[in-house]
Amino acid sequence: MTQLESARKSKISKEMSQVAKEEGVPIELILEGLSNGTIVIPKNIKHTTLTQPKGVGKGLFTKVNANIGTSSDKADLKYELKKLDVAIKAGADAVMDLSTGGDIDKIRSEIIKNSPIPVGTVPIYQAAVETAEGGRPIVKMSENEILEGIFKHIEDGLDFITIHAGVTLETIERLKNDKRLTQIVSRGGSFLACWMLYNKKQNPIYTNFSKILKKAKEYDVTLSLGDGLRPGCISDATDRPQIQELVILGELTKIAQDAGVQVMIEGPGHIPLDEIEMNVQIEKKLCKGAPFYVLGPVVTDVAPGYDHLVSAIGGAIASGAGADFLCYVTPAEHIRLPEIEDVRQGVIATRIAAHAGDIVKLKKAKNWDYAMSDARIRFDWKKQISLSIDPEKFSNMRKDSKPADQDVCTMCGKFCAMKQLKEYLK
Amino acid sequence: MTQLESARKSKISKEMSQVAKEEGVPIELILEGLSNGTIVIPKNIKHTTLTQPKGVGKGLFTKVNANIGTSSDKADLKYELKKLDVAIKAGADAVMDLSTGGDIDKIRSEIIKNSPIPVGTVPIYQAAVETAEGGRPIVKMSENEILEGIFKHIEDGLDFITIHAGVTLETIERLKNDKRLTQIVSRGGSFLACWMLYNKKQNPIYTNFSKILKKAKEYDVTLSLGDGLRPGCISDATDRPQIQELVILGELTKIAQDAGVQVMIEGPGHIPLDEIEMNVQIEKKLCKGAPFYVLGPVVTDVAPGYDHLVSAIGGAIASGAGADFLCYVTPAEHIRLPEIEDVRQGVIATRIAAHAGDIVKLKKAKNWDYAMSDARIRFDWKKQISLSIDPEKFSNMRKDSKPADQDVCTMCGKFCAMKQLKEYLK
Repeated sequence: MTQLESARKSKISKEMSQVAKEEGVPIELILEGLSNGTIVIPKNIKHTTLTQPKGVGKGLFTKVNANIGTSSDKADLKYELKKLDVAIKAGADAVMDLSTGGDIDKIRSEIIKNSPIPVGTVPIYQAAVETAEGGRPIVKMSENEILEGIFKHIEDGLDFITIHAGVTLETIERLKNDKRLTQIVSRGGSFLACWMLYNKKQNPIYTNFSKILKKAKEYDVTLSLGDGLRPGCISDATDRPQIQELVILGELTKIAQDAGVQVMIEGPGHIPLDEIEMNVQIEKKLCKGAPFYVLGPVVTDVAPGYDHLVSAIGGAIASGAGADFLCYVTPAEHIRLPEIEDVRQGVIATRIAAHAGDIVKLKKAKNWDYAMSDARIRFDWKKQISLSIDPEKFSNMRKDSKPADQDVCTMCGKFCAMKQLKEYLK
Repeated sequence: MTQLESARKSKISKEMSQVAKEEGVPIELILEGLSNGTIVIPKNIKHTTLTQPKGVGKGLFTKVNANIGTSSDKADLKYELKKLDVAIKAGADAVMDLSTGGDIDKIRSEIIKNSPIPVGTVPIYQAAVETAEGGRPIVKMSENEILEGIFKHIEDGLDFITIHAGVTLETIERLKNDKRLTQIVSRGGSFLACWMLYNKKQNPIYTNFSKILKKAKEYDVTLSLGDGLRPGCISDATDRPQIQELVILGELTKIAQDAGVQVMIEGPGHIPLDEIEMNVQIEKKLCKGAPFYVLGPVVTDVAPGYDHLVSAIGGAIASGAGADFLCYVTPAEHIRLPEIEDVRQGVIATRIAAHAGDIVKLKKAKNWDYAMSDARIRFDWKKQISLSIDPEKFSNMRKDSKPADQDVCTMCGKFCAMKQLKEYLK
């Protein structure tokens, strides 16, 4: 039984108990959320090394995903395992292996084996890469190769997989009829669109959706319905192709949930900040509250090198508005494949965004801020450091710049506002 | 005549023309904004080296201020001039010299002399520091020393000065009656509150406001009405002491403008993201649209070491909601005095926030994003680099990681979504 099916039968799984405890919520909230599709717990029955299951959805803390993986330009298994380690240490709740270079099977299986947190992939990447490496153009993939690629990832133990089931002929038609600047920036979306345009055929992931559901149910893989038509720049945000795809994803959500399969929905993308709340609301309406998994959002196109920060702006607003799962964006976005330090920066920036949003959604999230500020007014620096999102960085920065009075810091020195007022305000 | 008085007489100053040109707006917009107090152009008649006047307010791009200056724990003139240089190169629109250590007069005069952009200070810092260095407790400053300190800064050529005129006995009473965790975190606010509590007397900046106006008018110094009661942590946000002070600042705004003096209003501080828009709206209402100059806002207390990013989240939302001027926060905030690299990071993060907000407020702000994404879809990397907010960083990151195909980047390598689709979507 999947977590969804168990919950519908009020059967409490080990993972549900772990999640309820971790979140500090009654088990009934988890059961209800799983049953009505507003919560997922991504865990493949084959992923036996997953010891830290995560709940994603309504009433739970916002989660953070880190994308790792090789590309055709840079492929090194050891380096990817280091990225996994750094991502986990920095506090990621999940990772996706997006490898498109090197021994993809080996890299994936090693990442799954070494990950105590949920792992996701985009199976069509591998199918496409292997077609290309085999000397055929990607558009010559057979329907069967596409499906078999998905099945392989499910059987391999992935906890969630992205499938771009909403990139249909209908969606592509709307793409052609709309004026988009950057067209399609999703790799999976682009593979499929090219395939459909070349073969003049419907998306095989869409037409074979029930077969995929059957396999996903068998392994309890959570489907992450990909947004192949997500806007790739501010000027393409919230346009008809994007929303057309979301309408279709809403229909597929219901079909999947009725079949007992857990589902979440992927979202944009490049979105100006005043359109983020609307994007969360429309997803929640069209997909009946299914967990929303957003990439960024990136709120301006002009800051490559700082897209972790740009996305923290969008991610915080999205989280506050109800997004459940934030896919990190690293400083390397739009420039190159992320390196170790990019991964670390990306996870921390996104955790800050998730928490800033949680302060809005969950009353208890503020307790962390309260404890920090309480330590601050008491000049308890040890406590401040231990409570901070990156204790090592805080500690090093403080060591670098020693105040004469150990109570304060070198910003105001002996003229510390908090310290001087304490004497007179009694 | 001040810029405000000139505008009311429809007399176009050189600075007004420069600002109109820089912003790409008709001079009438500048004249009207100055006249009704929704725009200020901070420029002291003595600051002859100010060659880049800036307009701050309604209908104009959001501006960015960088705080520099020494503290009692670290004072080095040359280092501060380097900070000035780095801030200007990174794109700051203004700097504030908040020095409280070393030869404060010398540092200030050198910064003014070397700055082509507006310079601000908080004059009471120097008065307080000199009292303490002279061996007396700060609370023993005489009223006259406080006033003379302000006059000296006005005469020295500062373009804007922060005065905490709203920290009154009334405000302090509300502070005592409310439960605040971090009380007062504003240095100037704290100096004055201590002084008032000790001397049991009204704030001399409040009681002598008309004298200050007279001097400010003579030199056309813009008054930045400080928020001494800004919340210092999330749990203190938008409370009665904060809003009490704002009510008083609203009254003082009208008095100052009636006297021909330019005014802007300083704002919080630590604010959860769902209270930022309200904070901008209430300032605009109570102060009749006077430009709003916010510090941050910091949307969570838990991330020292990353407070530039935390503030970029708050600053972007504030900018989008109508804030006109963002004071940067650096990665050093809450830990130590900022260093050179902190200054650079702070300015860039805050420029990103300002622009993300401008996209919401000003239609033309999007043109920058459009040009960048247009270069991106055309694989014009030279153009992308030159358009980016930090061309040097972008360029170095690209050089570090060379793709086999020069059109694309190492993120997706030869499987670039945009490149492959171009072939089939015609």
